[in-house]
Amino acid sequence: MVLRRAKSGHGVMTTYTWPMKKVRGGFPVVIAVDRKAAKPLHRQIYDAFRASIVARSLNAGQQIPSSRALAAELGVSRIPVLNSYAQLLAEGYFETRKGTGTFVSSTLPDELVPVDSRSSHAGESPLGNRRISRRSALIPRVENPQWFRGRGPFSVGQLAFDHFPFHVWSSLVARHCRSVRASSLNYGDPMGFEEFREAIAAYLRTARAVRCEASQIMVVSGSQQALEISARALLDPGNRVWIEEPAYPLMRDALRVAGCQLVPVSVDAEGLNVAEGMRRSPKARAAYVTPSHQFPLGVTMSASRRLQLLKWAQSAQSWIVEDDYDSEYRYESMPIASLQGLDHCARVIYIGTFSKTLFPALRLGYLVIPSDLVERFAAVRRVMDIFPPHLYQAALTDFINEGHFSRHIRRTRLLYSERRRALVEAIGREFGSISELVGGEAGMHLVLKLPDWLRDVEISRRAADQQLWLWPLSPCYMGKESQQGFILGFASTPAAEMPRAVARLRSILASA
Amino acid sequence: MVLRRAKSGHGVMTTYTWPMKKVRGGFPVVIAVDRKAAKPLHRQIYDAFRASIVARSLNAGQQIPSSRALAAELGVSRIPVLNSYAQLLAEGYFETRKGTGTFVSSTLPDELVPVDSRSSHAGESPLGNRRISRRSALIPRVENPQWFRGRGPFSVGQLAFDHFPFHVWSSLVARHCRSVRASSLNYGDPMGFEEFREAIAAYLRTARAVRCEASQIMVVSGSQQALEISARALLDPGNRVWIEEPAYPLMRDALRVAGCQLVPVSVDAEGLNVAEGMRRSPKARAAYVTPSHQFPLGVTMSASRRLQLLKWAQSAQSWIVEDDYDSEYRYESMPIASLQGLDHCARVIYIGTFSKTLFPALRLGYLVIPSDLVERFAAVRRVMDIFPPHLYQAALTDFINEGHFSRHIRRTRLLYSERRRALVEAIGREFGSISELVGGEAGMHLVLKLPDWLRDVEISRRAADQQLWLWPLSPCYMGKESQQGFILGFASTPAAEMPRAVARLRSILASA
Repeated sequence: MVLRRAKSGHGVMTTYTWPMKKVRGGFPVVIAVDRKAAKPLHRQIYDAFRASIVARSLNAGQQIPSSRALAAELGVSRIPVLNSYAQLLAEGYFETRKGTGTFVSSTLPDELVPVDSRSSHAGESPLGNRRISRRSALIPRVENPQWFRGRGPFSVGQLAFDHFPFHVWSSLVARHCRSVRASSLNYGDPMGFEEFREAIAAYLRTARAVRCEASQIMVVSGSQQALEISARALLDPGNRVWIEEPAYPLMRDALRVAGCQLVPVSVDAEGLNVAEGMRRSPKARAAYVTPSHQFPLGVTMSASRRLQLLKWAQSAQSWIVEDDYDSEYRYESMPIASLQGLDHCARVIYIGTFSKTLFPALRLGYLVIPSDLVERFAAVRRVMDIFPPHLYQAALTDFINEGHFSRHIRRTRLLYSERRRALVEAIGREFGSISELVGGEAGMHLVLKLPDWLRDVEISRRAADQQLWLWPLSPCYMGKESQQGFILGFASTPAAEMPRAVARLRSILASA
Repeated sequence: MVLRRAKSGHGVMTTYTWPMKKVRGGFPVVIAVDRKAAKPLHRQIYDAFRASIVARSLNAGQQIPSSRALAAELGVSRIPVLNSYAQLLAEGYFETRKGTGTFVSSTLPDELVPVDSRSSHAGESPLGNRRISRRSALIPRVENPQWFRGRGPFSVGQLAFDHFPFHVWSSLVARHCRSVRASSLNYGDPMGFEEFREAIAAYLRTARAVRCEASQIMVVSGSQQALEISARALLDPGNRVWIEEPAYPLMRDALRVAGCQLVPVSVDAEGLNVAEGMRRSPKARAAYVTPSHQFPLGVTMSASRRLQLLKWAQSAQSWIVEDDYDSEYRYESMPIASLQGLDHCARVIYIGTFSKTLFPALRLGYLVIPSDLVERFAAVRRVMDIFPPHLYQAALTDFINEGHFSRHIRRTRLLYSERRRALVEAIGREFGSISELVGGEAGMHLVLKLPDWLRDVEISRRAADQQLWLWPLSPCYMGKESQQGFILGFASTPAAEMPRAVARLRSILASA
């Protein structure tokens, strides 16, 4: 921090200038204090000495004026000088020698390499080689394309926040925030809060046909952390892993960072093509899938594919990671039972989240872990971030146990069903038979496929300028045979506004 | 789920038994419903069919009775039968063939490998090979030794929770929980909440002499996640990394999971022995250090070691990760300025946490990242868990900006100073000159060194049985030349209770 200069004649700033002959390079060393500055005097003196020592204007071993002499020169009391000297001694900038006084520490290294003296080769940072890890270099840039940020028609991951029972929720949070016990402040279990895990297990058994006990539930911050923990616990660099083609891009990134070799396996109307996976990589170490409502295409994996996948995992002794991110919402039939519930060999790791049923900033999700792997998963989690925060776990336990959660899902299921129908009808009217809509049986998005000669990414960019948020389909593919289209979220747009939004979509497409 | 058996004569349970000759293996297939069960009829029928199909009691391609025939047989209305058939069709267990009726899906795979038919070699799980990743196998078992869990004298990481201003805190949380905006519910920035980052940057500049802007602050869940993110962003498997000897065990684990080769560098009264590190691994890719208050020994790195370390990092083009976990608490002098603040080459990644100043279940900490690395760190974080939860960030922003945070630190510093003095005095009285206490100038723990013939782990186990929580020192060493001792936390024990706790410690040691 640069000290303020005293206005001439006011004399609030005083200095002590080092005798020139004692200073290296002939630069004068000035210890200056400003009695009107907000910074205390002892701190000003400390900072001035430290800066001169770090900059090597003062040499190792050089003598320091006595506190009395410096105080007199600066025109301040001796106390701040003594305080600053004590601090500089404590930190090892100064040393004292018996009877002879105070010196700059003699063990300080020679001059640091000055930043700007380094020869700057073309392209090299003046700060030298800034090597980062190869694995972090594999992650695509966080560009935050506009269609992720926008709020309004078709934005994916946006919910009907205005229908969330905030009154109930905030009173539960306030209740738990007031009734504080040491157990809710202290370090907690890497698996999460016991009562919350009980509530999740009961919910999953009933609503999702997951076979589990509370001891198998690990509370995490959402699907993404669950994917990460599973990858770390189960997979090593170089392991081959089946991934859906197309897939959720952040699922791919999690496996890439883990050093895995991705084997894209195509998705058709019955879900993941298991036979293709077995042809391409029969011994893959794991398959990462979204069987209830494939992301992004929205198809449901058929019974026969489910049983084929389980059979493969059993015979290849591989793992299946089932990401069941939005299956609470299903419109034409009962929710599809989980793949995990069909598995008799404990090969499935099941992932769910509250980001889609409640709200994303909650940061709560869960893993259901085969019993014999629980200890290792807990060890991985502990090293990653020790344990999840307590308050929201406690509030959500009550929210579930008091019936608010199932009521909220029932209500929003009706609401989203209506919004979805409005979207499907409007697209039928505006686009007619030339459009192909897929994946709307469940969840909060469906896919509008485009003819190959249209470029989805380009159109999405232009649409975002007009406040229409179209997540392009083609970047969800790893391979070159990508399909053009848009992933259209419908959860946050009221049914009455849908026709106008679809009309705007058509006019943007018409001009493409 | 097993259907409840009807009491004879009540007739609430009805069954449909498959003609034996049509069933494989001669096992009868029974579709049973219980009209008094809580489970809806359509769900009972669905579950019975699905179970028979998954167990292969029904063959692929086998014909299913018509809904009319099954309803008549079961004595129920046709509606639940139709509903269950629709669901089984939707999920792909059934298929229809035009004009001929409904069949078990013909594409179902052959029988699954039954779990128990697998030959069980000695030691092999009946579930087959349960391969986990090599890197997760490197993490020590989560044993949760008792001294981590206990609350009471000497427990490390325990704070004076009873002095935390809960009233203020919970009203801030409640305020933010009520005043909900979409931005506080939705997906957020991987770096954290902007206003919170501003508050942290301002605090760090003033209180810790960290040179930073808000744009360099990443909000994380605590020091552990910060260590993880830095390791992932900067280090690849096989990279050599300096680690303090002794060190914080979870810091070592984070680097092990990252696949790094640990180079233990001894710590003496001046902190990390930089010359030793340069001898042992001059080209190490990073050094992980706790310069303000070394964990566990509690020494402060001297000015000359700090400058040597920075000079080494500059010339070797390596990174320094500075974990400044508890430096807010310093008793005999001003807080020691951060190492980061001395660095002119942007080689230091700085880590801090609110777990020690507020409470651990808050799960909030931060990284200060060199500007040119911010984008890659954000990409790593996004893949790890997308972004941090919102509510506590918002509440803590107000807590800091309204002055509660600095007031709380001032108060607890006095409190901990008093508790520390009481501990040091009591140990002096009880143990006299035979004891060696180190590291009490700062933080919330100090170290009592033991003579080599005492075994700290064993004594800690026995002490835990008597509700005295002694974290043994020797497991903090990687190498064989470990020192026996105890890490004694003093933050949660009132000064008046300290003499009795120390007397108990002495009697436990006397019996060892």
